[in-house]
Amino acid sequence: MKAFGTFYGVGVGPGDPELLTLKAINVLKGAQVIAVPRSSDSSSDGLSQALRIAEKAVDLKGKEMMELLFPMTKDRESLKSARKEAAAKVAGALKAGKSVAFITLGDPMLYSTFSYLVPLVREVAPEAPVKVVPGITSYGAAVSAAVVPLAESDEKVIIIPAAYDIDEVKGLLKSFDTVVLMKVNRIFDSLLDALVSMGLDGSAILVSRVGWPEEKIVTDIKSLRGGKLDYFSTVIVKKGI
Amino acid sequence: MKAFGTFYGVGVGPGDPELLTLKAINVLKGAQVIAVPRSSDSSSDGLSQALRIAEKAVDLKGKEMMELLFPMTKDRESLKSARKEAAAKVAGALKAGKSVAFITLGDPMLYSTFSYLVPLVREVAPEAPVKVVPGITSYGAAVSAAVVPLAESDEKVIIIPAAYDIDEVKGLLKSFDTVVLMKVNRIFDSLLDALVSMGLDGSAILVSRVGWPEEKIVTDIKSLRGGKLDYFSTVIVKKGI
Repeated sequence: MKAFGTFYGVGVGPGDPELLTLKAINVLKGAQVIAVPRSSDSSSDGLSQALRIAEKAVDLKGKEMMELLFPMTKDRESLKSARKEAAAKVAGALKAGKSVAFITLGDPMLYSTFSYLVPLVREVAPEAPVKVVPGITSYGAAVSAAVVPLAESDEKVIIIPAAYDIDEVKGLLKSFDTVVLMKVNRIFDSLLDALVSMGLDGSAILVSRVGWPEEKIVTDIKSLRGGKLDYFSTVIVKKGI
Repeated sequence: MKAFGTFYGVGVGPGDPELLTLKAINVLKGAQVIAVPRSSDSSSDGLSQALRIAEKAVDLKGKEMMELLFPMTKDRESLKSARKEAAAKVAGALKAGKSVAFITLGDPMLYSTFSYLVPLVREVAPEAPVKVVPGITSYGAAVSAAVVPLAESDEKVIIIPAAYDIDEVKGLLKSFDTVVLMKVNRIFDSLLDALVSMGLDGSAILVSRVGWPEEKIVTDIKSLRGGKLDYFSTVIVKKGI
């Protein structure tokens, strides 16, 4: 009987191909199948970006590419069936003894489709080992690019993904030293109002597309009011900067 | 006039030399001076670990090594004077046109001495460029090793460093989906009591020395009561695991 392949989650970082780790590169080189998450929503194009980054760091020619389609929807049933279908494809390759590297923007354990797939793949192919290669996160790269420490000494950090309401954010801004707000593009103007009303707009920076040619680091965030922001925009509020 | 050298903060990740990024390796290869933070407290040996990791990934022979001593103390005055002295040493090399790579465990922008040095170096050598290479954090590597997603969907993450009180932690555990508690070794038993009383001990894992030969991933954290924990121990509480 053939041994099962290993299912790898590989973080490729936020954009700069030099931010892949040696381990990520070695796993991508060794894997037989590269699993590429794709969003059906062509306007955001978010999930195939991982492939653009990986291809710049590693020669993927000759690899078997496995496209996995995940619809951009809140509909639980279609999400569930898309994930099940993806898991079945991955499990099929693992059962055939092939190692599968699922590439993911940033880190596979933070807001990534990979983490939804793991239990589903384990259901179908429980014998296949699962290994994760951590990646540089977008907020980690953002604070590095801006040379703003995320936290020092006994400061606490809170990371908030895209979905939230402004009143809750205001409460969190009061309680935490550092607040990372990911994917702020849709609520930026109301976030800006909240920051100005709390006297915190001077303590905030906006970073978008860190590591890409179109990278933007903005310290005067008031200048962005009313403009169109990139989907990959993060605001970091750090008291005292 | 000679151009100023660049002051680099380079994250070498939590332990596994394969978790250095390509950028970290390239910067270390190119730098003329490697600045190595050292703690005067030889029992923890915490801060020279960065060198042990970097040396495994890059040949540092022939580089000028610059030891920077930071006392393990809460005394503000001696901390301040140690940091000033370190900054003066770094600035001296930068003014001589040498690039200085300050290596740091994990990430230079998260609980690192590097972030304290930056403003002090800028005071003395404002013309020297400062660049930061982000690193894989210990908690990022920990959740990867344990294959436990840090956050999914709209979940929030809280990162708490070593210094905190248990009542505050209890409040945060009530309110948030994922709580990362770093350097728990000194307060582990009271943290365990709190988790048990909240019915959350089954949702917690302890990871220490991730990526080192002595790496430990413990899911039955009750088994650790009363034992001696490593200085680099992180507890991750994730509701629903």
